[in-house]
Amino acid sequence: MSKESTESAVRVFEVGPRDGLQNESEILPVEQRVQLIERLIAAGSKDIEVGSFVHPRWVPQMAASDEVFQQLKPRDDVNYWALVPNMRGLDRALDVGATHLAFFISASETHNYKNLNRGISESLDELREMLTIARDKGLTSRAYVSMVFGCPYEGDIDFGRVMDISATLIDMGTDMISLGDTIGIGKPLQVRRDCKRAVDTFGVDHVALHLHDTRGMGVTNAMVAYEAGMRCFDSSVGGIGGCPFAPGAAGNLGTEDLLYLMDSLDADTGIDVAQISKIAAWLEQEAHITIPSRCTNYLQSQRNDI
Amino acid sequence: MSKESTESAVRVFEVGPRDGLQNESEILPVEQRVQLIERLIAAGSKDIEVGSFVHPRWVPQMAASDEVFQQLKPRDDVNYWALVPNMRGLDRALDVGATHLAFFISASETHNYKNLNRGISESLDELREMLTIARDKGLTSRAYVSMVFGCPYEGDIDFGRVMDISATLIDMGTDMISLGDTIGIGKPLQVRRDCKRAVDTFGVDHVALHLHDTRGMGVTNAMVAYEAGMRCFDSSVGGIGGCPFAPGAAGNLGTEDLLYLMDSLDADTGIDVAQISKIAAWLEQEAHITIPSRCTNYLQSQRNDI
Repeated sequence: MSKESTESAVRVFEVGPRDGLQNESEILPVEQRVQLIERLIAAGSKDIEVGSFVHPRWVPQMAASDEVFQQLKPRDDVNYWALVPNMRGLDRALDVGATHLAFFISASETHNYKNLNRGISESLDELREMLTIARDKGLTSRAYVSMVFGCPYEGDIDFGRVMDISATLIDMGTDMISLGDTIGIGKPLQVRRDCKRAVDTFGVDHVALHLHDTRGMGVTNAMVAYEAGMRCFDSSVGGIGGCPFAPGAAGNLGTEDLLYLMDSLDADTGIDVAQISKIAAWLEQEAHITIPSRCTNYLQSQRNDI
Repeated sequence: MSKESTESAVRVFEVGPRDGLQNESEILPVEQRVQLIERLIAAGSKDIEVGSFVHPRWVPQMAASDEVFQQLKPRDDVNYWALVPNMRGLDRALDVGATHLAFFISASETHNYKNLNRGISESLDELREMLTIARDKGLTSRAYVSMVFGCPYEGDIDFGRVMDISATLIDMGTDMISLGDTIGIGKPLQVRRDCKRAVDTFGVDHVALHLHDTRGMGVTNAMVAYEAGMRCFDSSVGGIGGCPFAPGAAGNLGTEDLLYLMDSLDADTGIDVAQISKIAAWLEQEAHITIPSRCTNYLQSQRNDI
C-alpha cells in the first residue's frame, strides 16, 4: 500500500491524532478524534497514526484509543497506525485488529530510561519479541528512533549509534525506521548528512524523518532532507503537539507547512494543503488548541481578511 | 564600515525599528524606539534601519523619525539607516544628518503605482536625482526592490525585470540592492536560482535578501540563499511586522530565527541570538506586540519553564 518512491513522490505520515494530541493539554473525546481522522482522510492522508496503546494514567489524551480504532471505517487505501509501547499495548492493538504498528525506542540511553524505564538493550529485546509477532501475523510496522540529532539529557548523539539501532530493528523485521528529531534540535547540515547516510544504507522506502519545529527549523530540515533523498516525512496537522506547559510553542512539523514546501518543490504528496489548513482551523475552534503552523495562520488570516 | 565578505561572515541588516514597527498596530513613542535601537546595538547589530521619512499621515508609526535620529548617539561601528521615499523625505533625512539612506522601488508596475502613485520609470527618474545627491555628499545608500519573487497584484514577476531595475540602480550609484520578498511568496528553488544570479552579477557586497516569513518559508529561503552565495540578510527582531489586521501573522523574517540558522551553519554574524530574543520578549511585554518568532517563543518558554 506504500506509495512508490519515484523521484518526486513523497509519503506524508500524519501523526497529529497521536503525537500531536498527546502533547496538548486539551483532551479530545473519541468522537472528535474520529472526526479529525475522517477529515484528514478527506484531505488525502493515507498514513495516519490514530492512537496509542499506552496506559491512560500516563497519557490521558490517548485513553480509549481502542474505541477510536473500532469507530473507523476500514479502507483499502488508508493505513491506520497504532503506537505500541510494550507487549501489553501490543495485545490491545491486536484486539482491535490494528494492522499497522508503530514501536519506539530512543537513541539516548538516558531518555530511554526516563521514557521506558529500561535501557536501550532491554528495549531492543522486547522489540524483537514484538516484531516477531507482527511479522508472524503479516502486519506492517515502523519503529521510531527518538533523539537522533540531540538529547536534552545527553546533548550530542552519535549518529553511528542511531544507525546501529536502526540496522538492528530492520534486521528484526521492521518495515521502516522513523528518525525522530524529538526536541527539534537538528541542524540543517547535520540533517542533510545523516539523512543521506540513512537513506543510502537502508533504502528510501525504509526510512522516514520525524521533525519537530521547536526552534523553527522544521521546514528547512525537511527541505535539506528531501534534497538528500528522503521521501517519507512525519508531520502533524496544524503543527500541534507543543509542550502543554508552553501554549503556542511549536510541536511537530505542521503538515500544511510540510505540504506547502513539497508543493513548492513540485513533490507530489496527494494531500491538499488548503484542506489540511481548514482542519487545523477547525481544531482551533472546536478543540481550543492553539495552532502554531505559520502556513495555517497565513491562510486563515487571508480568509478573514476581506 | 561594511563587514568583509569572507566565506562565513554574514551581514545582518536589522529592519525591526522601521519595517517591523511600521506594520504593527501599536505605535511606539520615540523614547521606546530609541531604547529598542540601543538594545539592538548592545546585542551586536551594526546595520539598523531606525526610521522612515514618509509623511506621518501615511505611516503614523514612523512619525518623529527625526527625533529618533537626533537622540541616537553617533557611533563609528554602527550604521543608522533612514528610509527615504522621495525628495522631501531626503531633505528631512539630510537635515538630521543621516549618512545611510535606503530607497525603494517595486519590481511590479501595479504595486509601484499603488505604493508610490507613479510608474517604475518615473520612480527611477526620481531615484536618479536622489542617488546623485547622496553620491555627491559621500553618503552610503541601498535600494529595496520589492515584490521580486511575486506580487499580489501581478502574480509572477519576471526576475529579468528585477535584474534590469537593479542594474540601473547600481549604475546610478547605489551601494547595494536589497531583493525584497515583500509578501513572503518566494519558493526555495526560485530563491536559490535568482539569488545566485544576483550575487554573480552584482557581487556579494552589493546584494541583500529581504525576506518575509508570511508562509513560514523565511528560514528555508535564507538557507538556500546562503548556500547560493548571499551574505547580507534583512530581518526584524522578533519577526515583527505582520499585517496589522491579522494579529500573530508573521512579518519580516525574525532576526533570532535568522541568527539561529546562521549559527547552525557556523556563519559569523557578530550578533547574539539570546540577546535578540530577550529584546523581542521585552517588546512583547513593554509594547504589547505579539512576537511570531518561533525561536523566541521557544527560548522564552524555556526561561519560564522552570
